[in-house]
Amino acid sequence: MDRGALLDIESEGLLTDRRELDRISSDRSEKDNTMIKEPLLRRRINTTSQIALVGANVCPIESLDYEIIENDLFKQDWRSRKKSQIFQYIFLKWTFALLIGLCTGLVGFFNNLAVENISGFKLLLTSDLLLDKKYVKAFLSFAGCNVVLAAVAAALCAYIAPAAAGSGIPEVKAYLNGVDAYSILAPSTLFVKIFGSIFGVSAGFVLGKEGPMVHTGACIASLLGQGGSHKYHLTWRGLRYFKNDRDRRDLITCGAAAGVAAAFRAPVGGVLFALEEVASWWRSALLWRTFFTTAVVAVVLRGFVEFCRSGNCGLFGQGGLIMFDVSSADATYGTADLLAVIFLGTIGGILGSLYNYLVDKVLRTYSIINEKGAPFKVILVIAISLLTSCCSFGLSWFAKCTPCPANMQEPCPTVGRSGNYKIFKCPPDHYNDLATLFLNTNDDAIRNLFSSGTEKEFYLSTLFIFFVAVYCLGIITYGIAVPSGLFIPVILAGASYGRLVGTLIGSISSLDAGLFALLGAASFLGGTMRMTVSICVILLELTNDLLMLPLVMLVLLISKSVADCFNKGVYDQIVKMKGFPFMEAHAEPYMRQLVASDVVSGPLITFSGVEKVENILHALKMTGHNGFPVIDEPPFSDAPELVGIVLKSHLLVLLKGKVFSRERVLTGDEISQRFGAFDFAKAGSGKGLKLEDLDIQEEEMEMYVDLHPITNASPYTVVETMSLAKAAVLFRELGLRHMCVVPKTPGRPPIVGILTRHDFMPEHVLGLYPLLKPTSRGRK
Amino acid sequence: MDRGALLDIESEGLLTDRRELDRISSDRSEKDNTMIKEPLLRRRINTTSQIALVGANVCPIESLDYEIIENDLFKQDWRSRKKSQIFQYIFLKWTFALLIGLCTGLVGFFNNLAVENISGFKLLLTSDLLLDKKYVKAFLSFAGCNVVLAAVAAALCAYIAPAAAGSGIPEVKAYLNGVDAYSILAPSTLFVKIFGSIFGVSAGFVLGKEGPMVHTGACIASLLGQGGSHKYHLTWRGLRYFKNDRDRRDLITCGAAAGVAAAFRAPVGGVLFALEEVASWWRSALLWRTFFTTAVVAVVLRGFVEFCRSGNCGLFGQGGLIMFDVSSADATYGTADLLAVIFLGTIGGILGSLYNYLVDKVLRTYSIINEKGAPFKVILVIAISLLTSCCSFGLSWFAKCTPCPANMQEPCPTVGRSGNYKIFKCPPDHYNDLATLFLNTNDDAIRNLFSSGTEKEFYLSTLFIFFVAVYCLGIITYGIAVPSGLFIPVILAGASYGRLVGTLIGSISSLDAGLFALLGAASFLGGTMRMTVSICVILLELTNDLLMLPLVMLVLLISKSVADCFNKGVYDQIVKMKGFPFMEAHAEPYMRQLVASDVVSGPLITFSGVEKVENILHALKMTGHNGFPVIDEPPFSDAPELVGIVLKSHLLVLLKGKVFSRERVLTGDEISQRFGAFDFAKAGSGKGLKLEDLDIQEEEMEMYVDLHPITNASPYTVVETMSLAKAAVLFRELGLRHMCVVPKTPGRPPIVGILTRHDFMPEHVLGLYPLLKPTSRGRK
Repeated sequence: MDRGALLDIESEGLLTDRRELDRISSDRSEKDNTMIKEPLLRRRINTTSQIALVGANVCPIESLDYEIIENDLFKQDWRSRKKSQIFQYIFLKWTFALLIGLCTGLVGFFNNLAVENISGFKLLLTSDLLLDKKYVKAFLSFAGCNVVLAAVAAALCAYIAPAAAGSGIPEVKAYLNGVDAYSILAPSTLFVKIFGSIFGVSAGFVLGKEGPMVHTGACIASLLGQGGSHKYHLTWRGLRYFKNDRDRRDLITCGAAAGVAAAFRAPVGGVLFALEEVASWWRSALLWRTFFTTAVVAVVLRGFVEFCRSGNCGLFGQGGLIMFDVSSADATYGTADLLAVIFLGTIGGILGSLYNYLVDKVLRTYSIINEKGAPFKVILVIAISLLTSCCSFGLSWFAKCTPCPANMQEPCPTVGRSGNYKIFKCPPDHYNDLATLFLNTNDDAIRNLFSSGTEKEFYLSTLFIFFVAVYCLGIITYGIAVPSGLFIPVILAGASYGRLVGTLIGSISSLDAGLFALLGAASFLGGTMRMTVSICVILLELTNDLLMLPLVMLVLLISKSVADCFNKGVYDQIVKMKGFPFMEAHAEPYMRQLVASDVVSGPLITFSGVEKVENILHALKMTGHNGFPVIDEPPFSDAPELVGIVLKSHLLVLLKGKVFSRERVLTGDEISQRFGAFDFAKAGSGKGLKLEDLDIQEEEMEMYVDLHPITNASPYTVVETMSLAKAAVLFRELGLRHMCVVPKTPGRPPIVGILTRHDFMPEHVLGLYPLLKPTSRGRK
Repeated sequence: MDRGALLDIESEGLLTDRRELDRISSDRSEKDNTMIKEPLLRRRINTTSQIALVGANVCPIESLDYEIIENDLFKQDWRSRKKSQIFQYIFLKWTFALLIGLCTGLVGFFNNLAVENISGFKLLLTSDLLLDKKYVKAFLSFAGCNVVLAAVAAALCAYIAPAAAGSGIPEVKAYLNGVDAYSILAPSTLFVKIFGSIFGVSAGFVLGKEGPMVHTGACIASLLGQGGSHKYHLTWRGLRYFKNDRDRRDLITCGAAAGVAAAFRAPVGGVLFALEEVASWWRSALLWRTFFTTAVVAVVLRGFVEFCRSGNCGLFGQGGLIMFDVSSADATYGTADLLAVIFLGTIGGILGSLYNYLVDKVLRTYSIINEKGAPFKVILVIAISLLTSCCSFGLSWFAKCTPCPANMQEPCPTVGRSGNYKIFKCPPDHYNDLATLFLNTNDDAIRNLFSSGTEKEFYLSTLFIFFVAVYCLGIITYGIAVPSGLFIPVILAGASYGRLVGTLIGSISSLDAGLFALLGAASFLGGTMRMTVSICVILLELTNDLLMLPLVMLVLLISKSVADCFNKGVYDQIVKMKGFPFMEAHAEPYMRQLVASDVVSGPLITFSGVEKVENILHALKMTGHNGFPVIDEPPFSDAPELVGIVLKSHLLVLLKGKVFSRERVLTGDEISQRFGAFDFAKAGSGKGLKLEDLDIQEEEMEMYVDLHPITNASPYTVVETMSLAKAAVLFRELGLRHMCVVPKTPGRPPIVGILTRHDFMPEHVLGLYPLLKPTSRGRK
């Protein structure tokens, strides 16, 4: 196979925009398909579903490396803005943090309010019919409501914003790593994410609103940072300072943290979640700003909850913003308890990694269905909804009735919507313990499982049935075209598992069954998501009891360690499956055996410092590259020398401005009069000039344009003999998009090639050098 | 002034080892002294005290860049160790985390136990004498005990390990930034830190054991990582994998986190503290390992506390491991409360930044006294101890007596050591509220201030006097030759300030006075240390109440913001004052106006690939450089080309091995037979070969040695026209020690110069280009 001819094309560009692809690139895609044995769905083209789409519309975002403001021409701009505008910038930064916090808190509360009211209405209707012994009608109304809600959510998702399906955390994580998936932060995605999530959760699926809240927070942050939406003409020119990747990333990190804070009412947990799981680059200043945002969210939520306490919010109850109370459980423990906890953590880790494995398989299966088109997506959602309804209602149907315990503070059986003791079809003064779990919102089910001092509430068989049902439903639900979080299914399955174990070994251990449920949830979270500190803090903030911290830490450590032996964390797995070229923080060990020039190959498309318009247009048309090296040749320098890198987006702006000259001369002054630095500011994702927007006349084709003013004259470079591992570290730590490889020996062209994100991907490197065995992959 | 001649010397090397300095370097130091207007004490030589020493013995540690294992010659070593030894490495890594946790927990507990017993004995003695109305004897015994304890602590510190004075957090922070202060992690420092801290805290100073615990944790980690001490022949050869800077830094980060966890019993707070304040580089894998370490600490401490609960630990009481209980305070609040909290935070921020300012002034004054020698240090400590005793006893003497409140659960007046109601010289059934604060351990005083539901316990005047006294004593105590933490003085002053404000505006706000004390402490911590998330979590873990999280966050945000307008955080200030060349995470804005070659200048000392022994020895003797570029010339390459960088420490090992040849030939094979990769492993700080250890004969001087095998062939390079800001980001993010600047145009020598940490220091850059006005310094 002609590798040299293939690899001269910067791989990332190929995937940017379908319309720009030409013969060369489609040739290449085909060859790539045969070249890489396990394509992981990433080279597929022309798919539309979010899941199957996996990678087709991925475009790495700009690096932190390139700021046009650093160019000589525009330095004056920077100096002049120093005085007053830096304060404006700082003021705006904090205003944004405040706004993100306010909006996310508001949306989080609205989301909860809507879910509580919709599902409350549904459950009340069902329980009224059940009380009247109209069982068939009850089932039909229950399943009917679920299907209608599910269908609405699915239709929103399938027809308006396919990108809103799923959790959204992998996409946000990939964005913050430098990979911008198509329309992942668009206004339509935000709309569908909010309403799809409300309808999806209300439809009684085993899915959560926490992942979508993170995505929602990120979308809000992105929209605010862009000053609204260009498409819907909601924008504000004053925000030009934020039209760069560093500030945008910072805002989105804040947004993700605010999302977690709003979902769990866990401000510290939100900061840690953003730090541990979502962000790829972290700065101390960001910690501080993120913390401010989550504090605002906490205050907003607290305000609303206070407001609702007086009954102003319809059916909005305690379950609204989950806050579980296990603090009454006694937190003293001995050796037997520790052994029980170690056992719980080990099995939890195994089950967690099995969960990841199965989610992966199911996602791959669903992507085939979802690819067939929007109607199929909706049908799949309806099918899963019916299955869920049947499970919930059917399994409860066959459960035994239990006499109500005496001397309870709570009424038993529960009248109304939520509560520990659902009557279902039991005689008076009895309750159906499985219905208590199934015919409730997920939040209430978790609260029931976590409740302490109620050892006898659930039968072993009930817990077992519920655990198996929820574990399986959770797996088959993730991946349907509905915004669906993974936190709640995992906590639900983990809590029932924990309570099951706690009830089983209640004779050995003195710990409360509710505490076991909490520890079980921790073990599942550790086993699937592989976070430690943030989950620990989120659970502490949820349960408001610090005394069980050591036990929670222990369980998390064990389950994460065990699960790490088998596979990656669920979000990493989804990132990989979607084909995002995610840069890991460390270089793979086999990269030490290679040098930079081993993965780069020429010939390369370069421009002269003053280049003919025709050549630029041709290069832009024929390739999908996003960066081109600029080389000065003898008229402008003594010998060929590398000036720097010019970006496609900047080239388009320059060509649009038409500062051309008939002769090959420097026209920098003219350009600096025509353009300000902010004309080159980054447009929102998917926006900005396209090649088709240019209107270059025939006679202009022969003219010249001076590229010096827009060339990044300080690109990061590595020598061709640089160890690939060290080049990868440089690329990753500095968040680059393009890295120039320069020759070691003099007398050769001044640049050997350009390394992009794709050149560091294990698939690419191992495709070139199959003999290098990868070691320790899938571990952190 | 001849700048060119000065700047060819790599500045860092000059400060490494006094004995290596020759005429050139002392010349330079003198000129530097005149060159830099505000020397910040950093160029002073021949001082011995830890405070005045400030920078004289600073040596930047190796970078993460250089691993000899990456050289071709030793790649085989790496490959062969892949199989079994990687598991050994991982196993050891976790064992270390466990051991650090265990040891730090043990030391932390021992520390508390000793302090509680010693100061308990002292306080019991005093209160017995007071009960017998022997007031003079009581004062003499109180002050006498204090002076003796203080003198012992000071003597330990002044004569055995001056590096143990102070908090230690700035030093650990500098170490993790890449600056190794002299003997900061030595075994003697550890010893003095532990015992000095015990005696110092027992002596009743207004200082804490928390900062020293962080330093202790770091020392323990460092010693474990070195496999014990070379000096005392406690070492283990199997630990050679950890003899590099990355692993050592990771261990020390874990140690610092463990220290905080042990000091505050705050495992999550410890992790966050390490992340937010101490570490300069952070990896996700480290979060997870640090978390494990602090979890171990938490378990160890819990075990010991359980053991002591049954009264096995002498006078070890509740105050042992501070855990304050404010959870009974009601956490509902309205607008008036919020306004009060905002007011509290603002004033707290101002007072906090004033605290920093005064600490800085006092430190500079003390450094003059401490410089005069060890006896002066001891005298200063004794003077401060007498002053503290007089304050405590004298101010209490003039305080009013208060009748005991009726219906108290606690006995009043308190019998014995601690408690809320000290009788001092009051009649029966009365107590002296100032004595309750002064004649107690600091931990108990804080607990008394935090106690809720006791609005009437303290007079306004009492709180005011105590606040002023503690604020001033805290400032004058830090800087004396005793291990002294800043947390406790700041919390103490903040808590009394908060309670004062709370009592003052008790009519407006419905919040509890104890809660006000907590918020006051938070505002002072935010105002002095400028941490947010970690202080928030530490306070939450201390008080075990999550419901006041929003208020604590609010106060911290306000006080940090206010204080940031005035000066830097206290630790940053001390780092700067001690003259550590600390690399900030961001480049200074004016660096954008410069390029790399603006701060570097030739001529440079370079070696050939095969160099004459005499030349190497001469270069090592005449300069203090730690890295030399190696250049291959025509016999070995077509044109002069840069091979890489060779480190002084590796050169010394190579010369010691004497693999010389009479001819100018490559002898790589011979070298690889003679040496293994681990022969070049980094020795502990202050250890390793010295130039005097070499014994080169006269005839060997004329022989050649092949430098290729030990040359780092992949140094990170920048082109001379690279923006200095971007070069600084590269240097800082990748944690480099040397960065090569290469020429842009061909036909010149292959290297322009080497940039080191010192070349990026604002003092250096602004010294060269005084017209560049620094903006936004002192902000984060």
